[in-house]
Order: sequence, then C-alpha cells, then structure tokens
Amino acid sequence: MITGKNYIGNQLSATGNKTFKTFNPLLNIENQWHITEASNSEVNQAADLASEAFKTYSKISGVKKAEFLREIATQIEALGDELLQVYSSESGLPNGRAMGERGRTLGQLRAFANHLEAGNWVEASIDTAQPNRQPIPKVDLRKMNVALGPVVVFGASNFPLAFSTAGGDTAAALAAGCPVIVKSHPMHAATGEMVASAIIKAAKKIGLPNGVFSNLNSSGIEVGQQLVMHPKVKAVGFTGSIRGGRALYDLAAKRKEPIPVFAEMGSINPVIMLPKALNNRAEAIAKTCSGSITLGTGQFCTNPGLIIGVKSQGLTLFVNTLAKEIVKIEPSCMLHPNIAGAYETNKAKALSQNGLKVLAGYENDVEPNYARQVVTTVEGDTFLNNPTLHHEVFGPFSLVVQCEDEQQLEEIISNLEGQLTGTIISDDNEISEYQNIVNALQNRVGRIIFNGVPTGVEVCPSMQHGGPYPASTDSRFTAVGVDSIKRFVRPFSFQDWPNNLLPDELKNQNPLGITRLVNNVKTTAKI
Amino acid sequence: MITGKNYIGNQLSATGNKTFKTFNPLLNIENQWHITEASNSEVNQAADLASEAFKTYSKISGVKKAEFLREIATQIEALGDELLQVYSSESGLPNGRAMGERGRTLGQLRAFANHLEAGNWVEASIDTAQPNRQPIPKVDLRKMNVALGPVVVFGASNFPLAFSTAGGDTAAALAAGCPVIVKSHPMHAATGEMVASAIIKAAKKIGLPNGVFSNLNSSGIEVGQQLVMHPKVKAVGFTGSIRGGRALYDLAAKRKEPIPVFAEMGSINPVIMLPKALNNRAEAIAKTCSGSITLGTGQFCTNPGLIIGVKSQGLTLFVNTLAKEIVKIEPSCMLHPNIAGAYETNKAKALSQNGLKVLAGYENDVEPNYARQVVTTVEGDTFLNNPTLHHEVFGPFSLVVQCEDEQQLEEIISNLEGQLTGTIISDDNEISEYQNIVNALQNRVGRIIFNGVPTGVEVCPSMQHGGPYPASTDSRFTAVGVDSIKRFVRPFSFQDWPNNLLPDELKNQNPLGITRLVNNVKTTAKI
Repeated sequence: MITGKNYIGNQLSATGNKTFKTFNPLLNIENQWHITEASNSEVNQAADLASEAFKTYSKISGVKKAEFLREIATQIEALGDELLQVYSSESGLPNGRAMGERGRTLGQLRAFANHLEAGNWVEASIDTAQPNRQPIPKVDLRKMNVALGPVVVFGASNFPLAFSTAGGDTAAALAAGCPVIVKSHPMHAATGEMVASAIIKAAKKIGLPNGVFSNLNSSGIEVGQQLVMHPKVKAVGFTGSIRGGRALYDLAAKRKEPIPVFAEMGSINPVIMLPKALNNRAEAIAKTCSGSITLGTGQFCTNPGLIIGVKSQGLTLFVNTLAKEIVKIEPSCMLHPNIAGAYETNKAKALSQNGLKVLAGYENDVEPNYARQVVTTVEGDTFLNNPTLHHEVFGPFSLVVQCEDEQQLEEIISNLEGQLTGTIISDDNEISEYQNIVNALQNRVGRIIFNGVPTGVEVCPSMQHGGPYPASTDSRFTAVGVDSIKRFVRPFSFQDWPNNLLPDELKNQNPLGITRLVNNVKTTAKI
Repeated sequence: MITGKNYIGNQLSATGNKTFKTFNPLLNIENQWHITEASNSEVNQAADLASEAFKTYSKISGVKKAEFLREIATQIEALGDELLQVYSSESGLPNGRAMGERGRTLGQLRAFANHLEAGNWVEASIDTAQPNRQPIPKVDLRKMNVALGPVVVFGASNFPLAFSTAGGDTAAALAAGCPVIVKSHPMHAATGEMVASAIIKAAKKIGLPNGVFSNLNSSGIEVGQQLVMHPKVKAVGFTGSIRGGRALYDLAAKRKEPIPVFAEMGSINPVIMLPKALNNRAEAIAKTCSGSITLGTGQFCTNPGLIIGVKSQGLTLFVNTLAKEIVKIEPSCMLHPNIAGAYETNKAKALSQNGLKVLAGYENDVEPNYARQVVTTVEGDTFLNNPTLHHEVFGPFSLVVQCEDEQQLEEIISNLEGQLTGTIISDDNEISEYQNIVNALQNRVGRIIFNGVPTGVEVCPSMQHGGPYPASTDSRFTAVGVDSIKRFVRPFSFQDWPNNLLPDELKNQNPLGITRLVNNVKTTAKI
C-alpha cells in the first residue's frame, strides 16, 4: 500500500533517483519503505497543476468544498488501524496519542466543513449605489474573501496527522479555495503518503480538478526551497523550528513577488507564579507543572519551558517539590534520533551556561531515543543577562527563574521574545494587584492562561495560536481554529457588477442566506 | 504658526542641523518655511515615547478613542482656510481639491470613530468552558483583536491630507490602539505640521499619554529607515512608489523581529474593452477614458494607465476619438518639479520602446511643472514581450494595447503584474461570454469594475484598496475603509480568565452590547 512515491496531483510519481527511509525510534531501526524524493520537474508539475486547478477550485461553492473536507475525513477513517500503526512506527508515539491525533485531524476537517456550510467566513459586505448622491454619485460596491492561490504546507515533525498532510494548514487552505502542495515531513513520509492517498481519493470522488492536492517527499531542504520560490505558489504554511521557519520567511520575502509565510515556530511559554498561590499551594502547582513539562516527551510548541517566581518560602517549596516529582515520571521516546540528539545538544548547551543549576533530572539508563527530563534553576539577573537561556530546548526541559522582586519579574517578562502563550498562576484575587505584570505578559504572547497549563490547544473559534515573533512570523493570524482560514484569503471588491454575474454570496437575493454587512448593518435579508 | 519643527510627542523639537524647504509648483518657487530634519536622537525619543504610550493607549476604551478621532477632525477643521492655502502652496492642487480632500480626511476619521463606537471591530469570540467534557474538560476561551504596537506611517505625495499625517493609515492605527509616528512627506511638510498640531491638540484635550503621536520631518531616506528598523516599531503603513515601498518591505523583513509593512504602491489599472461595447459606443468610452486619464494630472494610484481591446472598427474609432479628446484637455500642474521630472523621464522611456506609437499628446507650451498628457498605442505581441511597457508612468499617460484576438487579450491579462483595479467595459449581456477574461482579470486585481472608471475610490466598508503584488505588499488587507484597521491588530485569547479582569468586550455581561460569536452563534446576548 505504501509506495514511497510522490503524488503529483492524482498521479503517483517517482522520477527522481534519491531515496530515503523513515525511522522507528521505539525499535531504533529504519522502517522498510523506500521513499523517493521529488525531482525538480515533479515540483514544477505540481505547481503548474495547482495553478491550473486554482482556476476552477477557487470558484466552487462552499458546500462543495465542505463535501470534499468531509470526504477526506471519511477516507482517513477508512485507512483504519494501519494508519495508526504506520504513525507510531514513524514517530514513536503511542497508539492512544495516534488515535487522539487522528480524532483531532478529523475534527478539524469537519469544523472547516461546518464553517464553509455556514458561509459567513467570506465576510460579505455590500454598499449599495446612491445614483443621486451629491456632489458625485455613489457606486455599488460588494466585497468578500476569495482564495489567495496555491499554498505550500510544511508539516510538523511533532504532529504527523493534526499539523501535517491533512492537518490544520491543509484544511484551512483547501477550505479557502486554495490548492495545496504538501512538502511531506521526512520523518513520517509513509504516514504522509497514506493520508495523501485519502485526500486524492476524496478529490476524485467529489470530481475536483487534478492538482487540487499534491504531496512531495524530500529529506533535504531543496524541494521546500524550490516550492517557496515557485512563482505560481502564493502562500506558505509552516510548523516547526525558528531556524526553519525564518529561512522560508526570508526566502519568500526575497522573491520578485513576495508571498506571505505563516510560520508557527518555537516558544518557551512562560509560567508566572504569583506569591500567594505559591504560598498556598506550591506542591500542587509543582505536580501540575511536572506533568505539563513531560507531556508528549515535551514535544509540544506549548511546552512550559520557563517558570518564573519571586523568591519566597513558597518558591523554595515549589522548586523542591518539582525536583521530587519530575524524576518520578517514566521517560518516553522522542520522535526521531535527530530530535533526541538535538535535545541532548541543546540541553547540554543550556546546562553549560554560567549560573544554571540542575534541580533534578531522570538519571537512570534509558532506551535509545528516550529523553531524560530535567528541571533547572537560575537567578533572575543571570537569566536577564544571558539570551541563550531564553531559547527553547525542545523536549522535557524546564527552567525555573528565581527573581529578587516583582520589579525584576516584570523586567524579565518585558525582555522575553514573543511567545505562543503565557500563564499566570494566581490565587483568586491576587492577580488584580499585578496588572503591570499581566500587561507586560500580554504584550509578549498570543494567549494568556489563568491557573492552567499551556499544553492542550483547544481547537475552537476563540483559540489564538500564534504570537509575536518568533512564536510566529505574523501575529495577526492563528494556526489553530477556523479563523486560520484568514491566512489564505484576500478581500475582493466588485464595483457596479451585474447582479446575475456576482458570486452567490453577494447577490441581491442572498441565496445562501448568509449574514452580510449591508449598508453598515449586519443582516441576512435580501436587498 | 508653521515652525518647521518636529513633534516628538507633544513637544516641538528641532535639535538637528539639516533643514530643507518645500516647493510651490504653481509659482515655481520654494516656500518660505525652513523645515528641520529629525535627528537620530529625536527618532529614538519618538519611538520610546510611542512604546511607553502604547501601554496605556492600547488599553483605553473604543469610545475614548472615538472621541480622540472626532476631536482630531474638529481641530483640523479649526485650522480653517490657512490649511487649504498651505496645502495648495505645497502641492499645486487647486482649492476645490483641497476642500474635497479635507472632507474625505474628516470623513475617514469620523467613520473610524463610528466603527469604534459600534465596537464590533474587535471580532469578539467566546467559547465557554465544559468542565465535564470527556475525555478532557474544555477550557473557557475568549478572543478579541488587540493593538499591534507603535506604527510608522509614511504619507503619500499625492494625498497631502487624506493619505498623509491624519490620513487613512494614521486613523486606522490610532483606531486600533496603536500610537503613530508619521514620517512626514518632504513635499508637504508644512501641511503636515499643521495637521500634526491638530492631532497633538486633540490628544492633549482628551488627556492621552504623551507619545501617542509624533511627526518627523525628513527630506532623505535615513529617518524612514531608522524608524522601520527601530525595535519598538511594530508595523508600517506606506503609500507611494514600488521602489520606495519595496525598500521598506525589504528592510522590515530583514529585522531580527520582522514586522508587517503594508505598502500601497503603483498600479496601471487595466481597462478591458469588450467588442460590442466598442462597436456601440466607442466615442463615449473614449471621452470617459480621456477624463479619467487626466483627472488630478493623472496623479492617482488608480489612474487607467492601460487600455486593452481586440482590433476592430470599434477599437479604431475609440483610438481616434481618444486622440481627439485627450488634446482638448488643458494640462495642469504636477505636485512637485521632481514628480514632473520623473513623468518626463518615464514617458520618454516608454516612448522610446520599439513598437510604441504616440496616438496624440498635448503639444503646446505649458508652465513649468505642468504635465502634458499623452496617449499611446502598441500591438498585443509587442506589449506581451516588453515588460517595460507594463510599468506605471505616474502622470497623465495611457497606453492602448490592440490585441489580435480574444486569446491574446486573455494572455496579456494573465501576464500582468498585480493591480489595484481592473475594469471591464461591456454591453449589458456581452460580459457573460467572456468569463475566462473576467476570471483572469480577477486573479490580478483587488477590485473589479463594470462599466466605470478606476479613479474615484469610495471610502466605505465594501471597498478593497490593495491588490496582488506590486499593487500592494499584502493583498490580504485594504488601505481604504474601516477594514484597514485589520492591518494593525492581532487576535488575542484569554483562557479561563477571571470575568471581572476581562476587557469589557469579553465579559459575561456584554456591557458594550456588541455582537459576539458565543459558542459559534452570533449574538448580542449576555452569557
């Protein structure tokens, strides 16, 4: 069933001569499949097909696109247990996680289908003509969101389903009316091919143009670069490292026609612990943190890599409890030897910084590719003066910063780079005394959490997943939830356009019954 | 009254030692005022003040910001006729245009005030908690748009009021809650200072923090570069040339923390004439085009620089009529000798291209800085093969492309760079036979017009002013209309946040009575 080939539109294709294999980190062996890297000409073919498909796909109805997304979900379900097995063999993630992530993926596809059926995502706006207005007549203007063009999606290493082949970016782009070319993640190319086959089946069943979806394999960076530079590509979605995301952003910005790159990148997700909370429940907080740090072997972009408090008895108790709790947790497998290797390297680099102390770490021997969690601590001024300590260590690593006072706490927050999330641990009324700290944190993050953990990203309309750089390349958009469609659309105005030639969304009769802004009033009424 | 100084927040300041003068193109003499260029330290002060002001200004209510915008409008009106005189002396534009543009500026400020008072621009979205959800509880998430940070605005040469100091970009950014630093346009620095004084008066009267607005003079590029590179600046609005806009975009993309640059740049605004329309009313179309080409001395970004039709008797009649009509119009003054000079240079460059023929041009002697309009024509294949002919000649210049057939027409459209607008001149039912051409045009523009002219940009919610590159740097936003506020905001989520500490927009009680998405239903109800 797994061929190792690329999907160039509906066609399986392997004209290139470079192959690679994926890796099973649990068994510490290569997987069996020979994956063929996409060739230059295959990349061009995929882009040409996508550009051609855009002409019709961008114009089909929301209801038809919804059918497509639902059919993709159905076809993914039809892949059955084999998908879960391949997923685990390429990620080391357990079956429960595989099932959960598949559920999330299907949920996302169906949420976009609902969103399309409701139809309001086009943000239709109509200003009717006033032919007798003085001194000049007012024209009729009607605006709605339209698709941007072919989108390239780079899947995430840590979400082989939910943020990869048919994940959030793909679902958002397809919902918008943009054909998608996935640059498959090399760590889970076989999982990617299975999901790609489901998308292609769905596209054929719904009768969509060839090229609405392609899936390209690559173990290096060339295919991705070629895609981002291709003149027919109009936007990019990416989930991964700051280095990778920034490289693509820079490449896209240098094009003759620059294109938007939405890259969701690293984050250390600061957790701020206020004094009364620490005083009253340091041990409970430490237990919660310990679980969040090690969840999914720390391989989440919302992993709490930084915990900050002001020195107190409570903070000391927190630190001691965290040290005790963290070692109780059984280490687990990382996604790939490269990621396990990078964890060791980055951890070692952090541990070698002056003033950084290890609080506790798992020290027993572990299987290959397993990550041994570690929690560390540092003084506030040491942290402030060493930018290396502000960088993400992707994995089950966390740093507790012990501040001298509230002022230093605020200074530290203000000096943080942009983050996906920030968390405040507070007793009920305590937080109102720390408005400066809350404000400083708000300016650095995309989502702020009260008495919770940053891990666990709910897929719902009110989720913002994207923060000031380098959390993402454009904080004005989200990577999670139906509003992520906004990354791939642009507003378009029709002036004095004949009613019968307007898209249904803008016709006088409002045949779709959507909510529109008509002469500045929201309404579902006809005109 | 005009000091030639910068406004660094509320303070008039001129610590630099470079001065320059503006120019009266009608009288062909320098204006009297000595304008002092902002110094490095003044730029830094303005950025520091803006960043500090952001802390409070970004948090004030929409009603208060609306008061501010209305007060700016009132203070601009209070400048009286002197503003109009200074405007004309720095632009050569007539009093009627000055009055019209002032009216547009006031209208924009008040439209944003209305928008803020209505309050729905924050796009509030609430998903309430489900503590008993299985397998994991659902958290409470509440999202709204918040201000991005200090914004730098580069005013347009051709709109000294409506797209400069208190123009569309400034109004949008201030409405969003972003302090604004204007890099005043050197051609109308005195006009800029007058308007800046009105903004400062308004800010003081409303009691806003010092630094919510600054106005910096500069005749070169250094001040602008320093502003765009300043770490405390978080976004840029620009209206002007492709070269200028692209330079700022490139600079911003190279920052350690890249920031969004919305540049509204050049466009040749193709007008496509369909055969029956030409056959039935070639003369009337030619007269309309002639007026649109020369309106405001052709100094509009929506000037129709390209007119395309398929060879026919009708097209010949159009071309002959256009040639007759265009010379009947009295030439008018351009904004500045540099712009008049650039018009001559670019016109000469176009005229020197192989295959380009002059149809007609005004040939009598004119006053200095006046522009003599010219219309030219070229064969379809010559146009296709010479990219120089695709570039804007800013001024009263237009090129008529005579295509062999409909296929060539479509090819030409598909090969155009991105445009602000595209126009179809059609007889009533004719257009439905040319869906390919309409589709091709839609992909290249932000606004499509039926039987009209591209000049005349209505300020209303349904206007899209911004198109694929190089019409603008990000086609996903508009520069005109209240939706232009979206350039300067980002979504922000609160998770499990205490109700009393939420912004009013997200509180259970909905004290502002705004429309919110609550558990996926649009409502103004309380929770």
